[in-house]
Amino acid sequence: MNKSVIIKKNERIDDLHRKGYKLIQDPKKFCFGADAVLLAGFSNVKDGEKVIDLGTGTGVIPILMEGRYGGENYFGIDIQEESVDMAQRSIMFNSLEDKIKIFHCDIKDVVLKFKSASFDVVTSNPPYMNTGGGLINEYGAKAIARHEILCDLDDVVFAASKLLKFGGRFYMIHRPHRLVDIFESLRKHKLEPKVIRFVHPYLNKEPSMVLIESSRGGKPMLKVLSPLVIYEKPDEYTNEVYKIYYE
Amino acid sequence: MNKSVIIKKNERIDDLHRKGYKLIQDPKKFCFGADAVLLAGFSNVKDGEKVIDLGTGTGVIPILMEGRYGGENYFGIDIQEESVDMAQRSIMFNSLEDKIKIFHCDIKDVVLKFKSASFDVVTSNPPYMNTGGGLINEYGAKAIARHEILCDLDDVVFAASKLLKFGGRFYMIHRPHRLVDIFESLRKHKLEPKVIRFVHPYLNKEPSMVLIESSRGGKPMLKVLSPLVIYEKPDEYTNEVYKIYYE
Repeated sequence: MNKSVIIKKNERIDDLHRKGYKLIQDPKKFCFGADAVLLAGFSNVKDGEKVIDLGTGTGVIPILMEGRYGGENYFGIDIQEESVDMAQRSIMFNSLEDKIKIFHCDIKDVVLKFKSASFDVVTSNPPYMNTGGGLINEYGAKAIARHEILCDLDDVVFAASKLLKFGGRFYMIHRPHRLVDIFESLRKHKLEPKVIRFVHPYLNKEPSMVLIESSRGGKPMLKVLSPLVIYEKPDEYTNEVYKIYYE
Repeated sequence: MNKSVIIKKNERIDDLHRKGYKLIQDPKKFCFGADAVLLAGFSNVKDGEKVIDLGTGTGVIPILMEGRYGGENYFGIDIQEESVDMAQRSIMFNSLEDKIKIFHCDIKDVVLKFKSASFDVVTSNPPYMNTGGGLINEYGAKAIARHEILCDLDDVVFAASKLLKFGGRFYMIHRPHRLVDIFESLRKHKLEPKVIRFVHPYLNKEPSMVLIESSRGGKPMLKVLSPLVIYEKPDEYTNEVYKIYYE
């Protein structure tokens, strides 16, 4: 089933534990983490829906979602050419060219490349960290994926809002300390937060991540889910997280 | 230590489990619940600070806070004359007239009654429920305490913001489904949300309440605390909640 693709020096091929799909990654640049897996699990794509992932990196989220849901087509865009190249080779390797397409595109230009109100679902695991407005000279691939260097929260939310049909859903994972900014930006762009779930490393610890579902043009009424806890004890996932990873 | 006060028909005297303080309540009208106790526990009053509770009802929050913290003075206002009367008698009964003063006042008029920027701490356990804009003819004491009939979220937040000094703290307990409205209203009135904690009836259940600390003129950076769980099993408090009630 896998096609032949070129694997470059420093790259490796990881198993996604879903339909036998594999992912090409370069550990020196950026490897996906729990956030991508949890976002793919939290998102809900219905049969026949059209989906786009903003800042897709190596394409892990569209590939995981394709393995999980019955969406018609998955798209992904990223500003980093090297990630896009890796994502495209992973898609070929998994023979998913008909279902998933990845483009080299800036989030700020996505509304020029795609028709407005043409997607049912948008996902994003955007850069988390404020740059704090400091002088930016040279950043590596990891920094661009993690810090708000080339785009900020509001750019991502604006793009999601423009791309979604009325009633369409935007799924994002972010950091709890930005929640007030997130809600403000979402409402500003007519995406009403509908469901949130905090992700805690352990039961009695503060959350390290938050999953957010918002709806284009939705009515105000937030549902806060029970906490999602990652570890039962060190190196042992809770049943719920084990299922998200492997079932 | 207790002074003689009149107890009216239907009223009862409950033990607050703090410094021997008692509270006069009328079960036919409104009795305090876990929300008041949790808010008093979540709030933090430093020695010498001046505090006001908006929509104080029977005065349970100022009395619990006086028993817990070293604040200089506690004030409370409520629009319901009967509650104010009960609160004033409870304060006399506990010999707290020098520390706590309760006034009959509409939240909308509180900025006329008290000097702006004159409090270190504001607390509120406001009506939770949207009225939904329906026709309002006649409401009882319970409905006024629970529904946004005579004041709404934005009225409470506006009053809190006006009363607080720069850097002062506003502690509120509310319902999770209103969190987006709460953050929006707080920021609009220059109260930055700083700490939130969700209250879950059981560990694996959705939260039923949320505690929110905001700061007048504070910088954006939200801390989300670990969940506060009320019950270990039916009728048995968790250790943490037991301590909030009894220690």
